Amino acid sequence: MNEAKLKDGERVNQLFSTDVKIIQNSEVFSYSVDSVLLSRFPKLPQRGLIVDLCAGNGAVGLFASTRTKAKILAVEIQERLADMAERSIELNDLTQQMQVIQDDLKNLGRYITGSKVDMILCNPPYFKVDKQSNLNESQHYLLARHEISTNLEEICKIAQRVLKSNGRLAMVHRPERFLDILDTMQAHNLAPKRIQFVYPKLGKEANMLLIEAIKDGSRDGLKILPPLFIHNQDGSYTPEIHEIYYGK
Amino acid sequence: MNEAKLKDGERVNQLFSTDVKIIQNSEVFSYSVDSVLLSRFPKLPQRGLIVDLCAGNGAVGLFASTRTKAKILAVEIQERLADMAERSIELNDLTQQMQVIQDDLKNLGRYITGSKVDMILCNPPYFKVDKQSNLNESQHYLLARHEISTNLEEICKIAQRVLKSNGRLAMVHRPERFLDILDTMQAHNLAPKRIQFVYPKLGKEANMLLIEAIKDGSRDGLKILPPLFIHNQDGSYTPEIHEIYYGK
Repeated sequence: MNEAKLKDGERVNQLFSTDVKIIQNSEVFSYSVDSVLLSRFPKLPQRGLIVDLCAGNGAVGLFASTRTKAKILAVEIQERLADMAERSIELNDLTQQMQVIQDDLKNLGRYITGSKVDMILCNPPYFKVDKQSNLNESQHYLLARHEISTNLEEICKIAQRVLKSNGRLAMVHRPERFLDILDTMQAHNLAPKRIQFVYPKLGKEANMLLIEAIKDGSRDGLKILPPLFIHNQDGSYTPEIHEIYYGK
Repeated sequence: MNEAKLKDGERVNQLFSTDVKIIQNSEVFSYSVDSVLLSRFPKLPQRGLIVDLCAGNGAVGLFASTRTKAKILAVEIQERLADMAERSIELNDLTQQMQVIQDDLKNLGRYITGSKVDMILCNPPYFKVDKQSNLNESQHYLLARHEISTNLEEICKIAQRVLKSNGRLAMVHRPERFLDILDTMQAHNLAPKRIQFVYPKLGKEANMLLIEAIKDGSRDGLKILPPLFIHNQDGSYTPEIHEIYYGK
């Protein structure tokens, strides 16, 4: 294991279930349960190419790296976050498997010619930009959370372009955007096949969803997976989530 | 309480949580948990007009009658089932509140002029007609289960026509038709607002969904309600379902 090259305000967090170490800076960006769940949601291709769009500090790709031998390309527009991802890759000795592209995802075609991606993972900005958008947030969080530098439309468009036929897009998002997601996927011929809703606890509305779509797939055969609960009634993690964080 | 006028093969079942008695004939049609859940899913209008489409033996409307003073119109194409519904209405002394129309739902405009329905409840045929359709089923079950005499398209079309502005359509259906349902609702300007997935037990995929849409509503503000489980791991009913069947 290499030594962490930390900058001001940074720390190293470990996802104990995987041994993966991640450089974080809570003033800039920290991964959350969304990234962990996304990395475990799809059956990952065991070879070929996985692209992590809106990669942030690289958490999704780093977690996924423990479950596949496929190459992983993490695409992040923000220099500061891409740099953290780069150093986390070195820290985990993953430079042979994983790379960072610091660029707008619109430009992915400059790095990948044709349609050769097996799977796209994406934890995109969740919120539409409107008057409610809190412009007092730090610039880093603002871009990570709001559809400023990219949006569903662009993500689905680029997915349709770079995915192989039958390649898959797996995304984590919010239920209030569910209809937008389905509409936009349909517009780009991405057929949803697996959806899992995530609930903060029993008896509460869903606050997260995981969705996997197949490029040029048929509209039949959608599965709604068993629901996932984050917390027990007493606020502790449910066994599923405890295992995801800490292992068995 | 009136006396049941039973025909050959018929029995009276009671939903104990409501005191409602329902004339059934398992060779022809029996209600199932789907109808019970649908009748309890939406917040019912307390006055005005509720229409139960694909009413079968009237179970959904009969259950709903205990929770509202609105008039209820049950529309059923099959004479045999409409007749059972009619006699159940008498049996429960509900002739002032509830009526049966035995006709194709396409013809609903003959009975309701303009757009004055507050809520439509619908437990439609779930299955597309294809080579897998089991044509050995009894004719009654065949029409109740397969999209032979009506389909999603017709149901959404008639809902858009007869519902008041902001009137609501509540439907129970299968997850494998979820995308069809959303597409068809959208084509008829019915905006989904509440969705609840129903799971046979913890850890299993959903096998039922409840969906409520508003006529001419906005596409924002969809809620994914807490999941509903039918059985405990030991096969007994969960507390929610036990209460729905037997009361507190």
